Amino acid sequence: VSNRIYLAGPDVFLPDARDIAERKKAICSAHGLEGIFPADPEIKDRANLPAFEIARLISASNIGLMDSCDGLIANLTPFRGVSMDTGTAVEIGYMSSLGRPVLGYTNVAEPYRDRAVQYYAQGGKAIPESYSAGSAIEDFGFADNLMIEFAVRRCGGSIVVSRVAEGTELHDLRAFEACVAQARELLSAARP
Amino acid sequence: VSNRIYLAGPDVFLPDARDIAERKKAICSAHGLEGIFPADPEIKDRANLPAFEIARLISASNIGLMDSCDGLIANLTPFRGVSMDTGTAVEIGYMSSLGRPVLGYTNVAEPYRDRAVQYYAQGGKAIPESYSAGSAIEDFGFADNLMIEFAVRRCGGSIVVSRVAEGTELHDLRAFEACVAQARELLSAARP
Repeated sequence: VSNRIYLAGPDVFLPDARDIAERKKAICSAHGLEGIFPADPEIKDRANLPAFEIARLISASNIGLMDSCDGLIANLTPFRGVSMDTGTAVEIGYMSSLGRPVLGYTNVAEPYRDRAVQYYAQGGKAIPESYSAGSAIEDFGFADNLMIEFAVRRCGGSIVVSRVAEGTELHDLRAFEACVAQARELLSAARP
Repeated sequence: VSNRIYLAGPDVFLPDARDIAERKKAICSAHGLEGIFPADPEIKDRANLPAFEIARLISASNIGLMDSCDGLIANLTPFRGVSMDTGTAVEIGYMSSLGRPVLGYTNVAEPYRDRAVQYYAQGGKAIPESYSAGSAIEDFGFADNLMIEFAVRRCGGSIVVSRVAEGTELHDLRAFEACVAQARELLSAARP
């Protein structure tokens, strides 16, 4: 039986989410793993449901899928701000708490510190941000918040940071594939 | 013995983090709970340590503190982007996975959908965001990503949304106090 890997990320919000899901699953399969994509696309298609019920079902389904998986690979590419997608961050904490391998990749190579500095330099205009001016910016060279960095390091992995062609940040899967290889190695090492 | 509540949020990054910690702890205490602030400020003071070691210690300490707590109250106020702080999101997932009550508040009343629309309307200039243009924006009226909303709802709580005076978004603690009251109620209901 293949190990199951939960494929966390903002990929679910993209117009071609199903295509990305298939590509990620194929890469997992080529490495002897089973990729499990979040339930969002299927549930969103059930247009007969009220919006709140769709949201509730997505949350419950994704938790059930995580419970059924042996590890997680998160897309940490910044999403609508300085940081990665927050739903994905919740999922990292959830799987980390279960003691299962958590891996991650980003296709934006500038470290968190540089992105945050750039954010304030441009006035952080997109949302009212003036209230956080003067707050400390983590300066560890990490891809994102240290809780994410160490969720990955604790299980023996390392975040894969990749620089890709502009416009392909949410579609280039080379860094993802490097995470799949890490996952396979970690999970086969854990076997008796 | 008082129930212990982990006080998650970007508060740790503010210049007056220690003052906020004391104010939050006092509010918890007034409600018969013990507020546990993340270890960041103490560890950052140990300037003799290399940066990487400081980061590692903060992560390990905060996980130890979460393990020792009976619940969590998260500051969900948007931080450096459309969404809440990602380190806090990891902590929500972690405590949620342990089955302990997770509560949260935000001092920015505009729902996630409005903030994301505003972000794209202004060009999302702070970081290269063009690659996520056209991605679906959750439109449930929630404060943030649905995984956060339901982490709170699953334990019987509700996110407290507050509109505060401009400039006080990271310092007004009335919504926080409403979460403390929720935590006390949920934890006393759980007692034999």
